[in-house]
Amino acid sequence: MEIKVLKDILGANEQIAGRNRQLLDSNKVFAVNLMSSPGAGKTSLILETVKRLKGKTRIGVIEGDVSSSLDAEVIAKEGVPVVQINTGGGCHLDANMASSALDKVPLKNIELLLIENVGNLICPAEFALGEHKKVLISSIPEGDDKPFKYPLMFHQADAVLINKIDLLPYLKFDTNAFSQTVKGMNERVEILQISCATGQGIQEWVSWLLTQMGKG
Amino acid sequence: MEIKVLKDILGANEQIAGRNRQLLDSNKVFAVNLMSSPGAGKTSLILETVKRLKGKTRIGVIEGDVSSSLDAEVIAKEGVPVVQINTGGGCHLDANMASSALDKVPLKNIELLLIENVGNLICPAEFALGEHKKVLISSIPEGDDKPFKYPLMFHQADAVLINKIDLLPYLKFDTNAFSQTVKGMNERVEILQISCATGQGIQEWVSWLLTQMGKG
Repeated sequence: MEIKVLKDILGANEQIAGRNRQLLDSNKVFAVNLMSSPGAGKTSLILETVKRLKGKTRIGVIEGDVSSSLDAEVIAKEGVPVVQINTGGGCHLDANMASSALDKVPLKNIELLLIENVGNLICPAEFALGEHKKVLISSIPEGDDKPFKYPLMFHQADAVLINKIDLLPYLKFDTNAFSQTVKGMNERVEILQISCATGQGIQEWVSWLLTQMGKG
Repeated sequence: MEIKVLKDILGANEQIAGRNRQLLDSNKVFAVNLMSSPGAGKTSLILETVKRLKGKTRIGVIEGDVSSSLDAEVIAKEGVPVVQINTGGGCHLDANMASSALDKVPLKNIELLLIENVGNLICPAEFALGEHKKVLISSIPEGDDKPFKYPLMFHQADAVLINKIDLLPYLKFDTNAFSQTVKGMNERVEILQISCATGQGIQEWVSWLLTQMGKG
């Protein structure tokens, strides 16, 4: 019985996600669902991406948070349109929330939509939003064992960004072992090492993104 | 209607948590529910606590994870009884899972039970397990804005441990502002600065714990 209810929820979510995808495609907007633990660097990555692509690609942002609009305020200062979703206790975005937010995004004026999911390595992996690519940020201080503990998230990601590599000298994290584990779970995944603090690897991330958009 | 269902779930959880609490009390076992983001240091804190209290306090551990038993294996090497709960996709422990695990914990042989919740700053805050104290680990790399984003977790904690303070020289984190914010949300909370890597503050944490147990 429980399984049936869950299937219904996920089935309904997939339907709405499909409609979101059609709306994005009809407006020629490429959407990325950014996921990570709390504090792994989603907002910092959005800020760096907006700065690098200024004048090259018109970007919009949807910010997902349990509460507060702190991140949305920081991003709005960069002059890009931002829509805030507060889940009010919910631990992930879903396609219905994304649909409501899409109504407020100026889709005709943007080419790239960055969606910051709620900071959580579990539930966001289960709920498609209509995005074209799922990007997971996994940061050095979290440790290199996370793929074993949160396998669905790593299995579903189109790209895994290893963030905060500037902290490698101070922490134990085997980037080779981590990358091999992730590739073993998901052979099509792109893995990039980045630091939003120093800018290392951000150009490679932006190039990957533009290639996915057909602009590479 | 949705709210009613949620109330039923939480109400049933509270009932089972109450029974867990009675079972713990009748065995004179003090239980702590340890919560944090993925990779903030729950397992490291358990290991440090076990080492410091060896020969002083008999400890048992319940390990909660979505999948894998990596942490349980590490802790078992310290010679303490460990019971693993795999939630199989679930983003938090609940009182029913804790009840099943308690059946396997040698309650008559321990005085302190450390329960490692699933790495998540959202849902674990909503589900009591029967614990006597809730302890939240918030680590420096996550950033000092987390209380604004995950208010329920900070509101409910009996103690907040600021972990990885050895990384303060390399990261922006205002410990005073963070502590003031947390105290503003939860005036009874104890806030301690620790590093499981260097051992700083671990003695204060263990002293706090022993005081709560009536052994201080």
